[in-house]
Amino acid sequence: MNDTKIISPMQPVQVLAFDVFGTVVDWHGGIARAITELAPQVDGDAFALAWRSGYRPAMERVMRGELGWTLIDQLHRMILDSILPQFGLQDLPEQDLQQLNRAWHRLDPWPEVVAGLKRLKKRFVICTLSNGNIALLTHMAKRAGLPWDCILSAEVFHAYKPDPATYLGVARVFDLPANQVMLVAAHHDDLAAARACGLQTAYIERPLEFGAKQPKDVSPQPGNTWHARDLMALADQLGC
Amino acid sequence: MNDTKIISPMQPVQVLAFDVFGTVVDWHGGIARAITELAPQVDGDAFALAWRSGYRPAMERVMRGELGWTLIDQLHRMILDSILPQFGLQDLPEQDLQQLNRAWHRLDPWPEVVAGLKRLKKRFVICTLSNGNIALLTHMAKRAGLPWDCILSAEVFHAYKPDPATYLGVARVFDLPANQVMLVAAHHDDLAAARACGLQTAYIERPLEFGAKQPKDVSPQPGNTWHARDLMALADQLGC
Repeated sequence: MNDTKIISPMQPVQVLAFDVFGTVVDWHGGIARAITELAPQVDGDAFALAWRSGYRPAMERVMRGELGWTLIDQLHRMILDSILPQFGLQDLPEQDLQQLNRAWHRLDPWPEVVAGLKRLKKRFVICTLSNGNIALLTHMAKRAGLPWDCILSAEVFHAYKPDPATYLGVARVFDLPANQVMLVAAHHDDLAAARACGLQTAYIERPLEFGAKQPKDVSPQPGNTWHARDLMALADQLGC
Repeated sequence: MNDTKIISPMQPVQVLAFDVFGTVVDWHGGIARAITELAPQVDGDAFALAWRSGYRPAMERVMRGELGWTLIDQLHRMILDSILPQFGLQDLPEQDLQQLNRAWHRLDPWPEVVAGLKRLKKRFVICTLSNGNIALLTHMAKRAGLPWDCILSAEVFHAYKPDPATYLGVARVFDLPANQVMLVAAHHDDLAAARACGLQTAYIERPLEFGAKQPKDVSPQPGNTWHARDLMALADQLGC
């Protein structure tokens, strides 16, 4: 909607760190498709939302110390096991469950993403900053052709976003002041946490993140350095 | 020399993890060139060998706990500072020293590497497993076009090779048994440490690693799964 620069960047950004689920890939569409291929009677939309809704509470249990450090692959499986009965799936064979859990490795990017990343990569170091584990992000990138310069993950920092250790970790890895790193994400809370650590921020509109039945409010919010419809628009704004 | 399969692989390998300095890039040539561009009177060959020879002792100090966890960029700088007087370079300005220290980020790959990695990437996940830090490896890959699927480093595991935490760390990241990961390296000690952890191993001949004046013995040693002249030969052997 508003492809405009909101405040002046203070420092030349060197590294763009991307949130992945929702920002780069369409988790709702991918998970809904995976379950309906396996079990056509299931409401794919409701299943995707139910699986994803367990994500943040599960990470919070880890961050509170109730669970030891746990990769997202394992958290996804725990949540999956917990929602099977409500979808009548408690009898799915173990092999199908393992295959289904790996659907998060096979999510498709939004249509403009590969072309947008290629443009942004010419001028910036582009990396992931996702709560997804390294193997998940690596398999996803390999399948979809996402041209990351490197894959950073909660797994590297042993903390999940929005823990400051993740945002500041990117700056530390690249030996840069925080304001020379920019988080690119479709979630205002993620961006706000990055901003509190001194990073620059770019909001990306993904109105269909939760599916066509639940369009998301993608209005600009104050504080972000940039607000862009998608990655091609961000590349335009950044002069790539 | 002997592009032959030495013993039968027990399991289908899924991930190839590459040593970088010497195996993928020519550190001797790159460092010798960097110093002679800056200070033409210096013997580039001797300078490169002196700088590199401080590398393992510096890592050993960290692993013994005499130094806290330290990125290779910082270790390179400590070693550089220590060898400046012997090359009459103690008066180099700070800006030149910073630029020189970053020469490790700008090393060129051996001639066949990019083409070889592209072939291997079609069939395997290809990643680094280097004592170099993530930023160094990322900048190197971006400049040289090294098509890694992901960058793994001592920095991820907080341990330097040959610590088992590094080799086993790759298997853990990808949730694989150790023998489905193969270390690719030009150094028999690195390969032996990986083998002791259960990884498969491929030796790559790099006879000029230490420069033309000091050709390296690249004879096969027992125990490696593969022995290849270079990455194109390895791709041939692995049927890529």
